[in-house]
Amino acid sequence: MGKVILTGDRPTGRLHVGHYVGSLRRRVELQNEGDYDRMFVFMADVQALTDNADNPEKIRQNIIEVALDYLAAGLDPEKCTLFIQSQIPELSELTTYLMNLITVSRVQRNPTVKTEIKMRNFEANIPLGFFCYPVSQAADITLFKANIVPAGEDQEPMLEVTRELVNRFNNTYGPVLVEPSIMLPPEGACRRLPGIDGKAKMSKSLGNCIYLSDTADEVWQKVRSMYTDPTHVNLNDPGHVEGNMVFTYLDAFSTPEDFAECWPEYSGLDELKEHYCKGGLGDMKCKKFLNRVLNRTLEPMRERRREFEKDIPEVYNILKKGTESAREVAARTIDEVRHAMRIDYFNDAALIAEQAERFASKQQ
Amino acid sequence: MGKVILTGDRPTGRLHVGHYVGSLRRRVELQNEGDYDRMFVFMADVQALTDNADNPEKIRQNIIEVALDYLAAGLDPEKCTLFIQSQIPELSELTTYLMNLITVSRVQRNPTVKTEIKMRNFEANIPLGFFCYPVSQAADITLFKANIVPAGEDQEPMLEVTRELVNRFNNTYGPVLVEPSIMLPPEGACRRLPGIDGKAKMSKSLGNCIYLSDTADEVWQKVRSMYTDPTHVNLNDPGHVEGNMVFTYLDAFSTPEDFAECWPEYSGLDELKEHYCKGGLGDMKCKKFLNRVLNRTLEPMRERRREFEKDIPEVYNILKKGTESAREVAARTIDEVRHAMRIDYFNDAALIAEQAERFASKQQ
Repeated sequence: MGKVILTGDRPTGRLHVGHYVGSLRRRVELQNEGDYDRMFVFMADVQALTDNADNPEKIRQNIIEVALDYLAAGLDPEKCTLFIQSQIPELSELTTYLMNLITVSRVQRNPTVKTEIKMRNFEANIPLGFFCYPVSQAADITLFKANIVPAGEDQEPMLEVTRELVNRFNNTYGPVLVEPSIMLPPEGACRRLPGIDGKAKMSKSLGNCIYLSDTADEVWQKVRSMYTDPTHVNLNDPGHVEGNMVFTYLDAFSTPEDFAECWPEYSGLDELKEHYCKGGLGDMKCKKFLNRVLNRTLEPMRERRREFEKDIPEVYNILKKGTESAREVAARTIDEVRHAMRIDYFNDAALIAEQAERFASKQQ
Repeated sequence: MGKVILTGDRPTGRLHVGHYVGSLRRRVELQNEGDYDRMFVFMADVQALTDNADNPEKIRQNIIEVALDYLAAGLDPEKCTLFIQSQIPELSELTTYLMNLITVSRVQRNPTVKTEIKMRNFEANIPLGFFCYPVSQAADITLFKANIVPAGEDQEPMLEVTRELVNRFNNTYGPVLVEPSIMLPPEGACRRLPGIDGKAKMSKSLGNCIYLSDTADEVWQKVRSMYTDPTHVNLNDPGHVEGNMVFTYLDAFSTPEDFAECWPEYSGLDELKEHYCKGGLGDMKCKKFLNRVLNRTLEPMRERRREFEKDIPEVYNILKKGTESAREVAARTIDEVRHAMRIDYFNDAALIAEQAERFASKQQ
């Protein structure tokens, strides 16, 4: 059994730099390191529908945005399989069978589900589909026999449910499904990038996100308006880097090469921070540097995006091919699932022969 | 829109006379009256798995028993489509989307679900799949656009959930699904036949069922041991027909023809009951008559069953053909569902053209 990597995103909007540093960058690295047998990246539109059931148009419009972001960020359809969740009906089928192997109260106890329900103010009005999503997520992972799921620590309880379901399935029916492990972000990596206003959560409605598809102008407007240090009023005032978005973003983005090429006056981020804290370094200089740093990442993405935007049908074609290829794997697993559960009656020659014999001997 | 009838049974054991008088007899009548456009009868093995997840073998062995009972009872594959639920994966897919349109608390409030949970002593350990079965049942009905569901009064709350889901789906996405009505048993018909011991519920574990496939000997043993009237000790004692299983079964089974041909001394059941109540009529005489009455129904079934038992592969073939035919309907509906939800991206030429244009104009 080799390494099978699987991740995905809900296609409810364009991806922003938070997505990039939180997971997309790592995916591209994993893809390019090539140390895996198969890598799947999918658009979780079925999951997005669990709390957007009345707005499928939002999802319909954002499939292409997320696809373009993926391709722009460097995901390569030759190296990883990009697919759309709703186009793999086998996922629903596996979910159906996994739902019998877990109790309602076990799902209720899941801390991730609890948090998500609270976040969405569902209270008593949780859509049933949303409530069941730990199980459908387990189906997403196990249908493709993924054993590595790159995700944040907050997803660990979901993976725990998946492993329980894998064990219960395999013990009840036979060894078909594979236990996944979480692959946490590397030590020190940025796990959740705040919005440019310093608010913990980037969100479209707060208007505090830098999108991967923002133009250079848009990025500069946003960087210029970034929340820094309200006590750093005059140039010579001592500054604070903690809670200062410019430095939070530099933590997440800047590399030694950025300094060497764009601001060689400093040996690196530590020296820059030291100067800022001491006083005598203006916010605007730091913002201009951050802007250059961001664009060193974003400009190649914009170029790739522009190329793909020229041929939208081809992007859908890439997704279609990826989906077809994913579906072959899905169909194989679901055949094994049905066979293990012994509900593949029409292909079950032993069953038919055995029953034919039993009824024949009864008639004699 | 014509009449589409749909019913089914969980294949967890052979069918008994309770199933027959409660629903199977009516189905055969409906079939033979022919006043419908399509009639589906299915084996609900997926539903049976929701509370038998650890015993798929029981279901696997009983598919053939239920199929033989159907055919023996007179269901005719030329007139009605017999299929196996698990072989229609579109059911899971529709269930997935319907689950987004109902809340957890709405399902919890369903009285049928409450009763079933109590009956099974699940308490806190309700399998999630079992909990969700009102929704999967709604999918069973709506995937085939059934508008008539012959069932007992206790199923009315389930149909209510289905109608709610149909309305919510159609209002949200467009008019695809069809509202079903319940078809209650005719006035005066037996809605639930008790066991031969007088216990309300027939069950395999209580050994109180007469099976459609019982031999004549087995039926006679069971009729002989039937619970009658414990106060009717001597022949001349007055008897009671209420709670007396012989008369309960005669209520459900005997016809004027049975009296004319087998016991012409009585004009019909009323006169027989009158005599029994007055005293002077022995239990054994009544049991012998009931035995003849039952066998007038069961003997033609035994004969048909014997014929079908001779060619078990052909019975599976009948189910396979029915399943293929049902699946064609399922696939058509699911296409309409996906189209209404606008998640049929790859076939959505308008979407692709519109987005291609939008990105092209952005680039200019």
